[in-house]
Amino acid sequence: MKTAILLFPGFTTLDAVGPFETLARLSGAETSFVAERPGPVPNDNGRLTLVAEASLDDVPRPDIVVVPGGPTGNLPLKPGPVRDWLKAADETSTWTTSVCTGSLILGAAGLLEGRRATSHWLYLDDLAGYGADTTGERVVTDGKYVTAAGVSSGIDMGLTLVGRIEGDRAAQSVQLMIEYDPQPPYDAGSPEKAPADLVAEWREIRGKA
Amino acid sequence: MKTAILLFPGFTTLDAVGPFETLARLSGAETSFVAERPGPVPNDNGRLTLVAEASLDDVPRPDIVVVPGGPTGNLPLKPGPVRDWLKAADETSTWTTSVCTGSLILGAAGLLEGRRATSHWLYLDDLAGYGADTTGERVVTDGKYVTAAGVSSGIDMGLTLVGRIEGDRAAQSVQLMIEYDPQPPYDAGSPEKAPADLVAEWREIRGKA
Repeated sequence: MKTAILLFPGFTTLDAVGPFETLARLSGAETSFVAERPGPVPNDNGRLTLVAEASLDDVPRPDIVVVPGGPTGNLPLKPGPVRDWLKAADETSTWTTSVCTGSLILGAAGLLEGRRATSHWLYLDDLAGYGADTTGERVVTDGKYVTAAGVSSGIDMGLTLVGRIEGDRAAQSVQLMIEYDPQPPYDAGSPEKAPADLVAEWREIRGKA
Repeated sequence: MKTAILLFPGFTTLDAVGPFETLARLSGAETSFVAERPGPVPNDNGRLTLVAEASLDDVPRPDIVVVPGGPTGNLPLKPGPVRDWLKAADETSTWTTSVCTGSLILGAAGLLEGRRATSHWLYLDDLAGYGADTTGERVVTDGKYVTAAGVSSGIDMGLTLVGRIEGDRAAQSVQLMIEYDPQPPYDAGSPEKAPADLVAEWREIRGKA
């Protein structure tokens, strides 16, 4: 199972690493971080650099495509090499996936038109703008397209995919080994659960951005 | 708040990135990845490289020390530069923390003797060998020492620390923005919850390692 995780300058780290830490544990997994230019790729806050070992051309036909997100200004939404690679890779992929605003990149490439899909809760409207049928669910599967909500949801997506690909037991094994028995100290992980004024505050910041 | 996240060859990626994605969102956070030798540091499965921008000497007095884990054969458990740095940094740190088998590194440095602490569920005995009072809890705080269980628990630890340092609202804000509203597709994230034969299988593999 060849998995290609896209990197671009300004990606959000956990968006990429959540699926990585789960999908790389598939039997026979071959996981590559790919970027337009191989080499160091800085994350969104500039405090961490991941190395893309492969160029887009090096991995033209991954079985699983994973597209992380980032602040919208950082996303490769315009026509260009990333979009060309995505559209070509999608033609032969078994799964085309995204985490967080990564779904906007898929959407901009025309891959989510008419499909059920999700994104970071603050960006669902943007996703709808690409013709997706948006939902606030955490992991959304529509055929081979699997989109996950904000940042940390890539772990749930990764486990879901391991289950679909290798079966429940394999997924449970991965969950056990990454000890994914979440016990967040607060219950504020979604706009429905967080204090309303906090949600409003972020919506306002987003509106001005 | 200066946070130093230790990297060493063969670390587990999510161990480091979970705390990073949360702690780097503290107001005025300065987060550095540090290593014995700055530059690219390969992870445990060899499919990803993170860049340590700083040497240990560059960040002698972090406020928060974060030590990720990895397969035990990869851990810097012997006397050497990492241990020297850890012991010195611990003298002035506000928080000394670990994720997964990172607690074995703290333990080997003599920092957890007589303290309540945790580790990846498969390695609690090893941790006890360093004189820690072990527990299977997910995030364990004993004074300024905060240890987290396996791999993914670093996210819960990071949120706990943000709450302790900057208050509940700041932590809820981080949780909301990383949309940490976990919905694992299975309930197998701890040895108590996973199928017993899967737990036994991993214990056997561990016993032979």
